[in-house]
Amino acid sequence: MALIVHKYGGTSMGSTERIKNVAKRVAKWARAGHQMVVVPSAMSGETNRLLGLAKELASSKTDMSHDRELDMLASTGEQASSALLAIALQAEGVPSVSYAGWQVSVRTDSAFTKARIESIDDARVRADLAAGKVVVITGFQGVDDAGNITTLGRGGSDTSAVAIAAAMKAAECLIYTDVDGVYTTDPRVEPDARRLQTVSFEEMLEMASLGSKVLQIRSVEFAGKYKVPLRVLSSFTPWDIDINEEAKSGTLITFEEDENMEQAVVSGIAFNRDEAKISVLGVPDKPGIAYHILGAVADANIEVDVIIQNLSKDGKTDFSFTVNRNDYAKATDLLKAKVLPTLGAAEIVGDTKICKVSIVGIGMRSHVGVASKMFRVLSEEGINIQMISTSEIKTSVVIDEKYMELAVRALHKAFDLDQPTA
Amino acid sequence: MALIVHKYGGTSMGSTERIKNVAKRVAKWARAGHQMVVVPSAMSGETNRLLGLAKELASSKTDMSHDRELDMLASTGEQASSALLAIALQAEGVPSVSYAGWQVSVRTDSAFTKARIESIDDARVRADLAAGKVVVITGFQGVDDAGNITTLGRGGSDTSAVAIAAAMKAAECLIYTDVDGVYTTDPRVEPDARRLQTVSFEEMLEMASLGSKVLQIRSVEFAGKYKVPLRVLSSFTPWDIDINEEAKSGTLITFEEDENMEQAVVSGIAFNRDEAKISVLGVPDKPGIAYHILGAVADANIEVDVIIQNLSKDGKTDFSFTVNRNDYAKATDLLKAKVLPTLGAAEIVGDTKICKVSIVGIGMRSHVGVASKMFRVLSEEGINIQMISTSEIKTSVVIDEKYMELAVRALHKAFDLDQPTA
Repeated sequence: MALIVHKYGGTSMGSTERIKNVAKRVAKWARAGHQMVVVPSAMSGETNRLLGLAKELASSKTDMSHDRELDMLASTGEQASSALLAIALQAEGVPSVSYAGWQVSVRTDSAFTKARIESIDDARVRADLAAGKVVVITGFQGVDDAGNITTLGRGGSDTSAVAIAAAMKAAECLIYTDVDGVYTTDPRVEPDARRLQTVSFEEMLEMASLGSKVLQIRSVEFAGKYKVPLRVLSSFTPWDIDINEEAKSGTLITFEEDENMEQAVVSGIAFNRDEAKISVLGVPDKPGIAYHILGAVADANIEVDVIIQNLSKDGKTDFSFTVNRNDYAKATDLLKAKVLPTLGAAEIVGDTKICKVSIVGIGMRSHVGVASKMFRVLSEEGINIQMISTSEIKTSVVIDEKYMELAVRALHKAFDLDQPTA
Repeated sequence: MALIVHKYGGTSMGSTERIKNVAKRVAKWARAGHQMVVVPSAMSGETNRLLGLAKELASSKTDMSHDRELDMLASTGEQASSALLAIALQAEGVPSVSYAGWQVSVRTDSAFTKARIESIDDARVRADLAAGKVVVITGFQGVDDAGNITTLGRGGSDTSAVAIAAAMKAAECLIYTDVDGVYTTDPRVEPDARRLQTVSFEEMLEMASLGSKVLQIRSVEFAGKYKVPLRVLSSFTPWDIDINEEAKSGTLITFEEDENMEQAVVSGIAFNRDEAKISVLGVPDKPGIAYHILGAVADANIEVDVIIQNLSKDGKTDFSFTVNRNDYAKATDLLKAKVLPTLGAAEIVGDTKICKVSIVGIGMRSHVGVASKMFRVLSEEGINIQMISTSEIKTSVVIDEKYMELAVRALHKAFDLDQPTA
């Protein structure tokens, strides 16, 4: 008997028929003697429907008070799905209660639409578990110190689930989703992609941040920080499969270095076509430049990914970075309005037709020449590299987006990812 | 400059186009210098959609924990529409903020799905109004002492609006709906029905409780208790009509007896086909019978309307009352299980094919023979009366539901309600 957190994505909650299946699956775990906390997403399509209505009503200029209302609005999707799941569990004969983020309470900062969890007060949940109830907690949302509803941003339900698992010291957090695990790369791009039985947190962190889309990056950060064993598995297996078989399915994201992991040098190929490149040209090369440019961007709550500063020439330098494509217009407007005039830079240029492709692997730490092999493979395919960024366990390149599939397939093959490891 | 509460029904909030119209109307009032609090219902159809999903998931037996989840679920409809209205107001250039019931906070008891408001802490709302914001507050819902979301039952948004108006001592509470006021009877039944410019609270209370469906009865009780001037008016007049004209439209529900009211003896004919009749036959005629029977019904939170106890014969009596048709099965099951065995009564019989028709009027107080005129009119139409109930300002009869329209039309004509008052 252990405390287990289940998280179900929007597709798994997409209809009353599917919610019934989720209830039957959770009931199976509860009847096996586990204390169960369940974190559902909104029914698929619901968040988009709500935000679509908001878009029809909003004026072009958005501000904090608008974002606050978006969170009031969007948070209703998870509240509804959580209540529906509790009702379905009760119909299964399993006592159940649902809570919104503010009731638990999941405390966050006040960064509306992209808030961060600060603490979780789990007293109420523990009392319910002790009383034999399955507790359903809304994903995606929390409450700030002033009592405003906040949301964690898209995919935030994963983060909610892991944060709750961490706060409650759950034995495992199972993320049920519409894929059956983490693959060496996206099978839609490379049909020979293989499912990994285990992947390290560090690798997963790189995979998630680079767009594997299986898990939200912050949920992996949380899991790593608090050492929450995290499993990604399919919600489309029959609910009545043997619980021991189910408990071993999918991909386990491990935090123990010495576990029996697959020992390939490169574990996977990640890619991301949601980014855009921005360059500030002709920047006077003096101390504080990077802060001057990126500080303004960070203040606007825009996340920056790859950052490159070229060698200076004639006292001027070029500064490039990538942001999410959705933030591209906001970032360039901001730089033109605030940074160009005060910095004396020459020009802002950008490119939205780029993508980032990365090779990721713990094994890279102890193997030299992995990055150079990557560059050689791309070169052989005639693909020009625009930016390079490296870390201990990954190497990323920014290339023209039209070469993305070609690059992924060539690298997948070159690093033998289509071959089962012994 | 006054503090004004507007309440908009589900039809008025039924699409983004309509929400924009509501925003423009509220903005007009705000720009005229009023402090505005707005209470919207859920978008039309939304509450039914949500409860329909719950129905697909629920098992046949319902209990408190199920009702708690229904409130978690249903309350999302108003939260979403409130946020959307705040966004629309911001787009109109009017600073606005929305609050859920628990944020304000609207405290209720814990009678899930039919909770009663106990208090409202309006400090947060006053601060926002002072800062020049339009405050949007979800109708229909509140929070109990344990922090559970509660709802006030169908039509509860009217009650929320009036309770907020009372707590904040608003100058007037305007209920915008899809009818343009209170009529002498339902125009769908009697085409010659006329709109009343004013109606007394007492009359309105009788009209509402008898099914005029313009306002929820509890909202009228609240308004009467706290002397909140209440106006029912149409949300389908163009939003840009002159504000002084709008402020005088619809029907004003007054609490001042000496106001210049229409002096007809009978103000309106109300009717209700949502009731069912239950009779407990062969009850031993001893003290405590009424409490024994109705106490059990009240404990199950079932509201009872007309109550009749016949003269006893041979130490036995018959006891009849009416309940909402939705509660009919629950009430009869309850009586059979709990009351029949302990009371030694003979039988429970019921009839769901009844209706109640009432004549209502402050003028009845000072006029004799009004009730007997009603009975004569029904008799002339060949309509048998099953139950009679009277108060100072109304006389109600329960009849076979197939005679309802006939009874309403005959009474409307007999009491000259189709003639304008001088």
